[in-house]
Amino acid sequence: MIKIGLLGLGTVGSGVFSILEKHAETIKRKVGTDLKIEKVLVKDKDKQRDLDFDDQILTDDIDEIINNKDIDLLVELIGGENPAYNYIIAALNSGKSVVTANKLVIAKYEQEIMGLAREKGVQINYEGSVAGGIPVIRPLKESFAANKIERLYGILNGTTNYILTKMTNEEREFDEVLAEAQSLGYAERDPHSDISGADAAYKISILSSIAFETSIDLNGVYVEGIEGIELEDIKLAEELGYVIKLLAIAKYHQDGLDVRVHPAFISKEHPLALVNDVYNAIYLHGDAVGDVMSYGQGAGRMPTASAVVADIMQAARDIYYQRPEVDNLDSIYNHDLVNISQVENSFYLRLQVKDKPGVLAQITKIFGENQVSLASVIQKHRLSEIVPIVLVTHQVKEENINKSLTAIKGLDDVISIKNLIRVEEL
Amino acid sequence: MIKIGLLGLGTVGSGVFSILEKHAETIKRKVGTDLKIEKVLVKDKDKQRDLDFDDQILTDDIDEIINNKDIDLLVELIGGENPAYNYIIAALNSGKSVVTANKLVIAKYEQEIMGLAREKGVQINYEGSVAGGIPVIRPLKESFAANKIERLYGILNGTTNYILTKMTNEEREFDEVLAEAQSLGYAERDPHSDISGADAAYKISILSSIAFETSIDLNGVYVEGIEGIELEDIKLAEELGYVIKLLAIAKYHQDGLDVRVHPAFISKEHPLALVNDVYNAIYLHGDAVGDVMSYGQGAGRMPTASAVVADIMQAARDIYYQRPEVDNLDSIYNHDLVNISQVENSFYLRLQVKDKPGVLAQITKIFGENQVSLASVIQKHRLSEIVPIVLVTHQVKEENINKSLTAIKGLDDVISIKNLIRVEEL
Ligand SMILES: NC(=O)c1ccc[n+]([C@@H]2O[C@H](COP(=O)([O-])OP(=O)(O)OC[C@H]3O[C@@H](n4cnc5c(N)ncnc54)[C@H](OP(=O)(O)O)[C@@H]3O)[C@@H](O)[C@H]2O)c1
Ligand SMILES: NC(=O)c1ccc[n+]([C@@H]2O[C@H](COP(=O)([O-])OP(=O)(O)OC[C@H]3O[C@@H](n4cnc5c(N)ncnc54)[C@H](OP(=O)(O)O)[C@@H]3O)[C@@H](O)[C@H]2O)c1
Repeated sequence: MIKIGLLGLGTVGSGVFSILEKHAETIKRKVGTDLKIEKVLVKDKDKQRDLDFDDQILTDDIDEIINNKDIDLLVELIGGENPAYNYIIAALNSGKSVVTANKLVIAKYEQEIMGLAREKGVQINYEGSVAGGIPVIRPLKESFAANKIERLYGILNGTTNYILTKMTNEEREFDEVLAEAQSLGYAERDPHSDISGADAAYKISILSSIAFETSIDLNGVYVEGIEGIELEDIKLAEELGYVIKLLAIAKYHQDGLDVRVHPAFISKEHPLALVNDVYNAIYLHGDAVGDVMSYGQGAGRMPTASAVVADIMQAARDIYYQRPEVDNLDSIYNHDLVNISQVENSFYLRLQVKDKPGVLAQITKIFGENQVSLASVIQKHRLSEIVPIVLVTHQVKEENINKSLTAIKGLDDVISIKNLIRVEEL
Repeated sequence: MIKIGLLGLGTVGSGVFSILEKHAETIKRKVGTDLKIEKVLVKDKDKQRDLDFDDQILTDDIDEIINNKDIDLLVELIGGENPAYNYIIAALNSGKSVVTANKLVIAKYEQEIMGLAREKGVQINYEGSVAGGIPVIRPLKESFAANKIERLYGILNGTTNYILTKMTNEEREFDEVLAEAQSLGYAERDPHSDISGADAAYKISILSSIAFETSIDLNGVYVEGIEGIELEDIKLAEELGYVIKLLAIAKYHQDGLDVRVHPAFISKEHPLALVNDVYNAIYLHGDAVGDVMSYGQGAGRMPTASAVVADIMQAARDIYYQRPEVDNLDSIYNHDLVNISQVENSFYLRLQVKDKPGVLAQITKIFGENQVSLASVIQKHRLSEIVPIVLVTHQVKEENINKSLTAIKGLDDVISIKNLIRVEEL
């Protein structure tokens, strides 16, 4: 029998609890032995819970788990940086294997945690931390092991994808859709981490470090959220043949890794354009396998628990059969992160200008001086003295765009720059 | 060092050879030791080959590999039933682990081969046998281990998907597109195994036996190919909101497994409808994970080699670190296969009838007598004395359709039944 210490009995923790119960027999057969949840750590022992269990297993004292020599496996599902990080480190130090779905802790402390697990000869599994039930970490480590991964695109945050989908399909503004998503439980009461792109940045950082066998400095990852996206941008995207998605991107270049999260125009025809609502997807290109995409529910109680229990089963089986841990996926490469100013993209730009002759000419002159060439220009119907201009550039370095925008902002006839969105050629 | 005996240096074999060479250093690091191709079995040693190697490694004598005690791992890529099957059995018997991409041998002899590998404590990996580079076997065994898989749909044959895509997009007939596909190398000179659905049947049989932990009798799998699909059917599908795909299906029912391969109408809106050309996809539903789809290149030199080399690396690592093999995925369940006559579906039916009053009434009367109700009827423009009638039924047992068709064929005014295609509600 393998005894488990479960930290957290919230959304995911309760899902894990019920799968372990519901499929106990199958799991026992596949693992080779019984799995038993020995202790469950919660914050509030007196909270009313929907699950059926012996109250004795609940504790609010982590030491009852860390110091329990019978517990071989710690499953961390409390979330947040601390105390989750401390508990993971303590568990590894006491020779327990660890399963977690905590993207924040893994993204920030991956190297330390992996190093410690290797040193102690125990497992650390974290499939649930990225894209919920969609297998992505294990495939990257194992199924694509014979490939050099060249690029990886993800729709990794369900909340923002839900909001963008609603804005697109129902032609509604951001604030309104966000409020609705919160009331439906699709967005957190404090949605900052989702909306700002931070959540997706943790996830792409985890995936990049595996795909490129390196250690990613989160501070070097460029992150931009979806707060600035207006319905007008979505309609114009549609008109130009695109949809707007919050894209997490990681590309290998000779001179460094290009890792970033931001809203992007992607072609309507691309498979990622069809990933809607709370669904997540990962699209990657390997030198041998070519393009591969996986798609499914990136969050939620049961999909995430599906990944966590698979991780538990793998760890438990290896503990039970005393299979030596072998993880030669050290972060052996020291890739620099490419600064966003050096990245080449096409850009979509929406401006408000005074309705005077010659404004467009002034703008295109500035672009010309900065080696920015234009792919298309839309000048919209004129109802007032202020008119919108929409431009799409050809591929150009971001610093050239920035220089141009500084100059364009200085023009008397330019009222405001409403939005600048990267166009990603997938 | 782990020494490999490679059987076959054709499309996939040569791809495996070049990945092992190109990524030798990374592979060594990930496995923990060098991989060396010690011997390569081919049919014709004198054939001109594009690869760079020492002629000494070529052999046409299998005994040089089976009897070589230094060879720990046999990689079977010659294809076909025999001698491939014999070689795999001989290798397992001599204590070697085996990697293969041979769907025919795995589908036919899975139980015997898995049993022997388990008995001998060696690995048998066959990720490359289904869907080329798309990870599907490993995810089913590991990532979705905590799920009860309820249904699984695959587009598992690239050749037929290419032909159907071309017929759809270019409005061309089957024979013409097949001939072109053959001249382009997308279809074999003898395309029977692809076109007839047999290839897809091997693959869905392999996937079902893993997903449902059972042994599938290939003879019980209903198989229908795409030879009968006419451009007219594709156009009518489009008109009705569907596309036609060769679908491999496996569903769990209380009273047995429903496993079959046939052309099917699927909704244009479903993600599988967008899987075009030689691409493959697997769409599954698990009780915890919900719907998950994977998509990529299902065949070809490098995508398939990507899967085969990943299998090689896993086996080699376990051999090198002497990790005991643990595979508790025995075929413990004895599921019956549901006979196709008992399966419920909607049906699309295209008939040629004489242009006389009352014909449709006669047909609907027969359907009514057999409890078949109609969802839609299209009666096409009348240019001659013979007119087409197109019907789509509601859900009904296949035996009721068959009884109806027997009666309908007997009607004087019915010239012919042009096609009957199942409509799959995914
Ligand atoms: N929810 C998802 O869809 C999802 C998807 C992917 C990954 N994840 C990750 O999974 C983890 C858990 O998320 P969740 O949504 O399940 O969280 P949750 O619903 O908020 O549950 C958190 C659980 O941890 C307990 N807890 C919190 N702080 C604690 C502390 N300091 N000491 C002891 N117990 C504490 C809580 O106890 P009480 O019950 O007493 O309050 C609760 O049972 C997070 O890392 C999250 O990022 C979640
Ligand atoms: N091609 C694909 O895209 C693909 C995709 C998935 C799975 N697969 C599977 O992979 C396997 C190999 O396919 P392939 O396309 O690589 O085949 P292939 O191109 O026809 O190559 C077969 C190789 O095996 C050798 N060979 C054949 N019969 C032999 C015999 N009796 N004794 C010794 N050597 C023999 C041939 O030797 P010579 O070179 O001397 O003729 C040749 O090198 C098959 O099981 C196939 O189903 C293929």
